[in-house]
Amino acid sequence: MDNMFLPYQQTNGVPQESKLATYMKRSSPSVNSLSNNLNSLSLDHTAQFQKVLAQSTEFVPSNLASNSSSNSSPNFHLGNTYASPVRSPANAQTLGGSPLNHAPSQSPPPKIVHPTPVQPSAAAVSTYQENVGGTTYFYPTSLATSSVSADAGPVSASPLPDAANVVSSPNYYIYPGTPSHLTPISTSPVSSPGPGKKLPPAASSSFYVADKLRQEIALRHTLTMTLPDPDQSQNLPTVVDNYHELCPLEPATSGTPKVNIMGYQTSSYKATHTKTGVRYCLRRIHGFRLPSTKCMTVVDAWKRLQHSNIVQLREVFTTKAFNDHSMIFVYDYHPGSETLLAKHFSPTGPDAPNGYADAFSNDPNAPRPYSHQKNTLLRAQHSSLLPEGALWNFIIQVTAALRVIHAAGLACRALDPTKIILTARSRLRLSCAGVMDVITFDANVSNPQAHIPHYQQEDLCALGKLVLALACKSLISVQPENLKTSLDLVGRTYSSDLRNLIVYLLTTQQRRSLTDLMPMIGARFYTQLDTLQIRGDVLENELAKEMENGRLCRLMVKLGTINERPELNLDPTWAETGDRYMLKLFRDYIFHQVTEDGRPWLDMAHVVTCLNKLDAGVNEKICLMSHDEQSVLVVSYAELKQCLETSFEEVFSASVKPDSRS
Amino acid sequence: MDNMFLPYQQTNGVPQESKLATYMKRSSPSVNSLSNNLNSLSLDHTAQFQKVLAQSTEFVPSNLASNSSSNSSPNFHLGNTYASPVRSPANAQTLGGSPLNHAPSQSPPPKIVHPTPVQPSAAAVSTYQENVGGTTYFYPTSLATSSVSADAGPVSASPLPDAANVVSSPNYYIYPGTPSHLTPISTSPVSSPGPGKKLPPAASSSFYVADKLRQEIALRHTLTMTLPDPDQSQNLPTVVDNYHELCPLEPATSGTPKVNIMGYQTSSYKATHTKTGVRYCLRRIHGFRLPSTKCMTVVDAWKRLQHSNIVQLREVFTTKAFNDHSMIFVYDYHPGSETLLAKHFSPTGPDAPNGYADAFSNDPNAPRPYSHQKNTLLRAQHSSLLPEGALWNFIIQVTAALRVIHAAGLACRALDPTKIILTARSRLRLSCAGVMDVITFDANVSNPQAHIPHYQQEDLCALGKLVLALACKSLISVQPENLKTSLDLVGRTYSSDLRNLIVYLLTTQQRRSLTDLMPMIGARFYTQLDTLQIRGDVLENELAKEMENGRLCRLMVKLGTINERPELNLDPTWAETGDRYMLKLFRDYIFHQVTEDGRPWLDMAHVVTCLNKLDAGVNEKICLMSHDEQSVLVVSYAELKQCLETSFEEVFSASVKPDSRS
Repeated sequence: MDNMFLPYQQTNGVPQESKLATYMKRSSPSVNSLSNNLNSLSLDHTAQFQKVLAQSTEFVPSNLASNSSSNSSPNFHLGNTYASPVRSPANAQTLGGSPLNHAPSQSPPPKIVHPTPVQPSAAAVSTYQENVGGTTYFYPTSLATSSVSADAGPVSASPLPDAANVVSSPNYYIYPGTPSHLTPISTSPVSSPGPGKKLPPAASSSFYVADKLRQEIALRHTLTMTLPDPDQSQNLPTVVDNYHELCPLEPATSGTPKVNIMGYQTSSYKATHTKTGVRYCLRRIHGFRLPSTKCMTVVDAWKRLQHSNIVQLREVFTTKAFNDHSMIFVYDYHPGSETLLAKHFSPTGPDAPNGYADAFSNDPNAPRPYSHQKNTLLRAQHSSLLPEGALWNFIIQVTAALRVIHAAGLACRALDPTKIILTARSRLRLSCAGVMDVITFDANVSNPQAHIPHYQQEDLCALGKLVLALACKSLISVQPENLKTSLDLVGRTYSSDLRNLIVYLLTTQQRRSLTDLMPMIGARFYTQLDTLQIRGDVLENELAKEMENGRLCRLMVKLGTINERPELNLDPTWAETGDRYMLKLFRDYIFHQVTEDGRPWLDMAHVVTCLNKLDAGVNEKICLMSHDEQSVLVVSYAELKQCLETSFEEVFSASVKPDSRS
Repeated sequence: MDNMFLPYQQTNGVPQESKLATYMKRSSPSVNSLSNNLNSLSLDHTAQFQKVLAQSTEFVPSNLASNSSSNSSPNFHLGNTYASPVRSPANAQTLGGSPLNHAPSQSPPPKIVHPTPVQPSAAAVSTYQENVGGTTYFYPTSLATSSVSADAGPVSASPLPDAANVVSSPNYYIYPGTPSHLTPISTSPVSSPGPGKKLPPAASSSFYVADKLRQEIALRHTLTMTLPDPDQSQNLPTVVDNYHELCPLEPATSGTPKVNIMGYQTSSYKATHTKTGVRYCLRRIHGFRLPSTKCMTVVDAWKRLQHSNIVQLREVFTTKAFNDHSMIFVYDYHPGSETLLAKHFSPTGPDAPNGYADAFSNDPNAPRPYSHQKNTLLRAQHSSLLPEGALWNFIIQVTAALRVIHAAGLACRALDPTKIILTARSRLRLSCAGVMDVITFDANVSNPQAHIPHYQQEDLCALGKLVLALACKSLISVQPENLKTSLDLVGRTYSSDLRNLIVYLLTTQQRRSLTDLMPMIGARFYTQLDTLQIRGDVLENELAKEMENGRLCRLMVKLGTINERPELNLDPTWAETGDRYMLKLFRDYIFHQVTEDGRPWLDMAHVVTCLNKLDAGVNEKICLMSHDEQSVLVVSYAELKQCLETSFEEVFSASVKPDSRS
């Protein structure tokens, strides 16, 4: 096992261009003779296939090392530009590219990071070794160091800024791991610098998107894709204007009273736009006849209003599809949303799983904050109250929405816990935009705008009541007879800013404005901004983990459509000849390598690196061998990429209908 | 071609459990006889392989339709739960799962959405048809409708909230497309409701992450992975404390004067932590001896300070690795950052590509805002000035950082354009935290905290100068002799709020505070919050597009390690027998299907759907056929998933070293 594989071109002098042609037939005599020639150099003829990687070594004349950047010349032994003498665990993933004699036996399979450094063999301690396609080359260490960036020239497709120093960077994609600014402080190198320190969990297990976030998004997608249950939706029309697949969004239990707005029964449906396939939320006002189309002016104003804390109104129309006169408001659909009522004011809500009791309830046995057992009960009550930060988060988002609404000359008029939805963790949106304006529209009033300032003041009142109810976690707390007690509770529990804000909003004698609230919010704006900026950073990093996987998927699908295809254009040997034969061997190189003792070598880093190098078409060369060890090919990833593109183009052309090819 | 494939279990009565065992040998006589038996039902024996999808039809007794939810029974003809009579383009992707006779001929290959509805054939217009494994079943339309949700029971792994109505949803992953709240208003269904309306580009081409964002992230990754150029970094030490792979971050051109802080030369390097592999930024103070370790108190205070607008300080140490006494400050590394100086005050900066001239430059020919040709020149000048929003964005972020610094009893002391970096689009971070405190540390001063209020006031001065310089786009504008002209320029160009803020900050007679700035920022906080919330929504949607691709990649890699593996545990027929044979046929089913006339059927939606159904292990059944048409198998995805898991477990066990198996 101490012989070497000579590169194909050097062995018989066939020019590189004809290499593929030579291998057009796997069993052609010329290939066999060459392969046998190679095999006669004493390959191990055991029954084990695919033992590509012998521990063969070769000493290369040192004057060749400086010539390594010329890609067309056969001295490709420096093609692997990623072998740096000093390695860190994080970039050792690049090692997976070449079938090292040491690596397979040392890398535990199902992980990405592949931290095995190149170990100098006992025979060549003072030299630097590099492995190309199973052949190990040794150089004096000094030369090896200078060869690290030998190939980082025109091949690199990575856009490096001009200002940077001359550097060598991998010319294919690598995810470098979680950046330091997203690792918690406690895992910083300083705080636990013990020598036996393990990798922080964030760094070792973070190559795919965080599970919790994935589940959140997947749940939303599932809800979006949900189809209506035919038993429950049989009374629903199949098509309503441009929408179909109506799916009720509110539980249709007979016990629950229907949602009413100004005496009109309303229902909400998820529906799919027939032309775009996008899901929307339809809010239907039952039995409503539009008195005048004049109110469409206000609808247009709402449609123009865009804000990240308002559920966007898309269109309004009347329909008889429900066998009545119904008015439909089309809004953006936010799957998995919860109303503020369900989230914070329901005893069975997720916030109060164990025995939350409304302190203002009519039940005489309920604990009351104003009872005599003040100290004990209040504390129990307090533990179920919301943290002050959550209240300010609510205030900032609702005032943000109200601000743009009022600035547009509109008023919300529906600021109650059933009309505010939580569309994600702590993200609020005001829903039902424009409904009140349409329902209460009176065509006889000459100037409908005249009432807006009054409604805006009412919005501020409603906001004050909402904040108070949230702070006390009780809807009854805002009733006039409870008001003083409620404000006492707020004063004892929360900051004076919060109490002042509520008092200001509830003081109807004066003319109030949202602008006056800003000083009370004060520096909490900064807290909110910091939270959002960090959230953005985290999301960007989650995206960075996954963003190239789609590309790798497509690449594997392309390979899959070519490898082992039974026939193409009536040629049953298509997948076994020419370019496709190279790709078949490359498939084996990616997936079917074995260690010296015949065990499968499973290494995700190897697969990912191979695919990324293939996609980038780097000039690194690898040695491919057929199962029967009869064919040995030394090819670059660039050539393999060409093979892939040509072959896929062939399949693609064949897939196009003859009459549509013109 | 009008016969049907009978399900395997119904044909010969072999219990389901033994089915795999029966197929352990591809060439076993019993299989052949069965296959021939099936084939004798008049299969098309052309030279074309894999023509699985005959236009076979079958009328099922209608009383069977209601029984479809029992999974173990052989009447699996309703397994496809996703066939809804009314289909939208967006969820038509689910169609790809079954090899429909119509679909292949109508779907252009390289796209995901597969908008071909099930077309009722001429022979059965009034019936509803469903296709299972190439066999088409027809039902009366009413029955079909009620069968839609028949299978959505225990199989579903999707977590649906209790509150939702009973609905049927796909029990495998589907990306539903861009949600409506992220599509621009102009593509809302209302604004262009013409009948011939095309899909908006956002909806049709948005299955992978946006190119621009991907390139931004990829560039950052490339810079993170960049290795030092040995020629330029040969004077650098190999290892500095726990860091190696030092890579200079500033251009080392001899003409540029080195960066100086308080007379000390400084350099910055990217470096890799040897234990964690995470990259950090090292800032080295050349030739600096620490007079006393007492200053480590202030270093600790800086290390505890975490904010999204401050470059995190990780640790500080002294080293002789550079052959001098150097002090090293370790910070988070933000690849691709630019200093404020380079971004906004460099004539060759990206902001001023064509002929930007500093209005305050010493060049007598430079246009001046205070010259007599006021109107023309000022306008030219104004066009190169920053929009006011950008200035407020800057002010909000810098004041956010300063606020936490001052609140921690610290002062920045390095608020100049070379020490503020832009780490992404419009994201700022203050760098060099703590450097000034350490360099100017005087161990003889009894109370170093006494100077902090003075330094904090200086921070506010520096902020005022920075805003003024940014507003005038000139560093000279803040010089005393230019101050009045600069403020005039600001007053003419921007709001009075901005001018007032600058004047307040530059008025050193009074004691100033960041709190006083908040009213001047005012509602601009809301604008900033809205921007960040929208940014978060966009990032979350980008993530949603790609987040399941990693899973699909891993699934394809698993399939790849099994399919066509030349041997396992000395068994060269491993990949062709038993579970692996099923997987081999499934591979063909995914990748190698052909249309009726023998053309390859390329449909990414089909591949993605197959893989997702495999991963979810749904109960839908498909019909697999061997290349030679000698074997026909009807299996569910659940069984295929079991095959995959068993087979991969086998490969994995074989890959573990014998001595580490215990």
